[in-house]
Amino acid sequence: MIFVCAGSFDPVTNGHIDIIERASILCDKLIVVVLKNSVKIPTFTLDDRLDLLRRVLGHLPNVEIDHYAGLLVDYMKLKKARVIVKGLRAVSDYEYEMQMAHINKTQYPEVETLFMTASINYSYLSSSFVKELARNGGNIDFFVPSIIKDLILGKLKDTGGN
Amino acid sequence: MIFVCAGSFDPVTNGHIDIIERASILCDKLIVVVLKNSVKIPTFTLDDRLDLLRRVLGHLPNVEIDHYAGLLVDYMKLKKARVIVKGLRAVSDYEYEMQMAHINKTQYPEVETLFMTASINYSYLSSSFVKELARNGGNIDFFVPSIIKDLILGKLKDTGGN
Amino acid sequence: MIFVCAGSFDPVTNGHIDIIERASILCDKLIVVVLKNSVKIPTFTLDDRLDLLRRVLGHLPNVEIDHYAGLLVDYMKLKKARVIVKGLRAVSDYEYEMQMAHINKTQYPEVETLFMTASINYSYLSSSFVKELARNGGNIDFFVPSIIKDLILGKLKDTGGN
Amino acid sequence: MIFVCAGSFDPVTNGHIDIIERASILCDKLIVVVLKNSVKIPTFTLDDRLDLLRRVLGHLPNVEIDHYAGLLVDYMKLKKARVIVKGLRAVSDYEYEMQMAHINKTQYPEVETLFMTASINYSYLSSSFVKELARNGGNIDFFVPSIIKDLILGKLKDTGGN
Amino acid sequence: MIFVCAGSFDPVTNGHIDIIERASILCDKLIVVVLKNSVKIPTFTLDDRLDLLRRVLGHLPNVEIDHYAGLLVDYMKLKKARVIVKGLRAVSDYEYEMQMAHINKTQYPEVETLFMTASINYSYLSSSFVKELARNGGNIDFFVPSIIKDLILGKLKDTGGN
Amino acid sequence: MIFVCAGSFDPVTNGHIDIIERASILCDKLIVVVLKNSVKIPTFTLDDRLDLLRRVLGHLPNVEIDHYAGLLVDYMKLKKARVIVKGLRAVSDYEYEMQMAHINKTQYPEVETLFMTASINYSYLSSSFVKELARNGGNIDFFVPSIIKDLILGKLKDTGGN
Repeated sequence: MIFVCAGSFDPVTNGHIDIIERASILCDKLIVVVLKNSVKIPTFTLDDRLDLLRRVLGHLPNVEIDHYAGLLVDYMKLKKARVIVKGLRAVSDYEYEMQMAHINKTQYPEVETLFMTASINYSYLSSSFVKELARNGGNIDFFVPSIIKDLILGKLKDTGGN
Repeated sequence: MIFVCAGSFDPVTNGHIDIIERASILCDKLIVVVLKNSVKIPTFTLDDRLDLLRRVLGHLPNVEIDHYAGLLVDYMKLKKARVIVKGLRAVSDYEYEMQMAHINKTQYPEVETLFMTASINYSYLSSSFVKELARNGGNIDFFVPSIIKDLILGKLKDTGGN
Repeated sequence: MIFVCAGSFDPVTNGHIDIIERASILCDKLIVVVLKNSVKIPTFTLDDRLDLLRRVLGHLPNVEIDHYAGLLVDYMKLKKARVIVKGLRAVSDYEYEMQMAHINKTQYPEVETLFMTASINYSYLSSSFVKELARNGGNIDFFVPSIIKDLILGKLKDTGGN
Repeated sequence: MIFVCAGSFDPVTNGHIDIIERASILCDKLIVVVLKNSVKIPTFTLDDRLDLLRRVLGHLPNVEIDHYAGLLVDYMKLKKARVIVKGLRAVSDYEYEMQMAHINKTQYPEVETLFMTASINYSYLSSSFVKELARNGGNIDFFVPSIIKDLILGKLKDTGGN
Repeated sequence: MIFVCAGSFDPVTNGHIDIIERASILCDKLIVVVLKNSVKIPTFTLDDRLDLLRRVLGHLPNVEIDHYAGLLVDYMKLKKARVIVKGLRAVSDYEYEMQMAHINKTQYPEVETLFMTASINYSYLSSSFVKELARNGGNIDFFVPSIIKDLILGKLKDTGGN
Repeated sequence: MIFVCAGSFDPVTNGHIDIIERASILCDKLIVVVLKNSVKIPTFTLDDRLDLLRRVLGHLPNVEIDHYAGLLVDYMKLKKARVIVKGLRAVSDYEYEMQMAHINKTQYPEVETLFMTASINYSYLSSSFVKELARNGGNIDFFVPSIIKDLILGKLKDTGGN
């Protein structure tokens, strides 16, 4: 079975990695796909986001990294994949994601979304919080792997705090 | 009794039509009013939004279409109407709308907001989802009446995906 | 238009009265119906609950009081009524009531549930809180009309705190 | 991969069957296990609940039916299974189930709970609603397969409406 | 300033202790009061619950343990205390507690409820989960201090699993 | 004990004042600090926001007004303060603030966030609603002290409705 884990990963955090590691054990192949969102402008470039993902997911042999500009359901059809895996942190996340899962079913009835609960230590963690902390000199050691911490801080300095 | 159903209708969806049809049976006259929101910039022009509403609501004899730049409560006073009807999709909608209903009471104590639950098939549907799908080549057949589908797709192409 | 406001009213509180008063203005006739719930055992007898309702709703000429043992939808059919009016206090109320509204639609597709938000001063008020306070010597002056306060306190003493 | 779907199934509804059918496609074997709950007393006997499950799940070759008195995590260990699959209807379901998933992790760190969103038509459906309707002469055709409808109605009559 | 932390503590868990320790630093005296709830029948006797509290809170010099049969607001008046401190685990807890805080204000306008968020490791923990685990042979090491674990298991055996 | 109440106060409302008044009674000193948010652009200038705060909080002798560009936790360290006090209006507020409280703990483990429930009359009130009303000629008498009402209306006119 192929699982697909989609997001903007702007940037990847320990919360994403936790879900990807746990989900990768449950499937033959897990594709992590960076989606181009037509509305939100990302802080990190696509190349940077893919680079960060590659650096922190290299230890997972059955994980592939990809990117796509378009609807997730079209990507799923392209890959002949039918399982979307989605990490849920908070209760308020769930309502939006449940709506998204219903929308996806209307486009591709065979697609299924499997939700996993974020590990307790990452249940309050988001890319936005990481960026807010990093821009203001906070400590992001708990939130991103040490091997990409300096890269993230450097890139954020370059973007001048966008 | 006059009911007023207000929104940005950017664009109108089957979800709006469902609420308008069901509410129109419960009152003498239902006014559908497109409100100019001072914060959000709409994707469709006011004229386009009114045009789309007229095309899909023509079969409802006691429904009037109008527009207003200002507070909904001021429109209600102007029309000597006291019932706002509001469709609710998700639970998270309700908290915001409940606050809005209390605010409206402070401005016009006689006004009442009646909430109706979206029909199950439209409970996950929003104008934003429709636009996101349409811009990315998704199928919006389930979400808007067929007689306005091509108009919506055409207008979205003109706006270049805003 | 006939509105029906159903509940166990065990006992009626200012929160119920607020919704009934506001709803009665919006319809020709409002029927307040005490439903026999097959699961919960009420604290007050049916006769007491009807008596309390009659004492506090007498000033509303278009309000009728009734009782029924069975499904609300069957009562609606019996009365040829199609509008259920329901007060919502908290956000968590809404999810349950939304499910109930969908269930009712499967039994009687013409039925509509209109939700009204409790007035801000009664948004935290429930029959259970009133009973808990009354049993422990708390002050229920804010929560029930003065003309039934002593009746409620007396009846609760008789039931020995059930 | 073995998935386990646990519950009281008191009685099984179309909502359960929807999740079981969709989940069974995603795994090699799906075990449906009726758990003895130490707190809630079921309406249907264990034998009746197992019988109803067998009647409606016979068409799914990789689905097994079982029962267990004890903690779900202990059953998972016994079966060397690590994936719990859980259907979610409403938003309020999710918070409880997320807590349960964390508790289960403390007992058996390898266990994962995968949540699936109920199909839109069953998003408001529960065993309790089915029993409440059935006891009061409501129509349960939308909620349970026709081949077990009469069995459910008959058994409920025997229990005298508990 | 005196803080009061009230509950049924049936039994005390690491979640309660976490809140009590953190709150005790913020006040001159913290009173932990076991309230007799007129509705729920506790699993542990009052004496057992007080005994367990004493065993695990002895290291906190400014913490007192007490019990009361009646409304928390009456206890607050008796002690001339005006701050209730309340730990919140989940989002759904908050709505109920917010209602309770408003009710308490009507009885004793000077009373204030301060809410603290449970530490992340106890955010899913409740006395009910502890009892459910303990009765079924689960591991409660993460949830209660080791010095009371055997007492809890022994008492639960005596009550025959109520 | 020093309490810190942080926000953008854009502009201060009766809701903020209610929390500040109630919290100031519970501590030796309460610092109200206007935080520069790196993402949201405020409607009122920092000077205007500080001026409005000074005009409405002058009657509270133990309240200080300050401003800071950076993380709240860094401000807390600077002031050797460890208690953040936060008003909660709606249930949906709580989930975000709970996440923020956990993030703050990772940066400064001694910091505690105490949540207070907004008084019932301000439970639906926000700076955004006040601005929306004011820009459209609505009545903001219920929402801001009369001594700053004209200042707010004047400043909003100057900003041209941003």
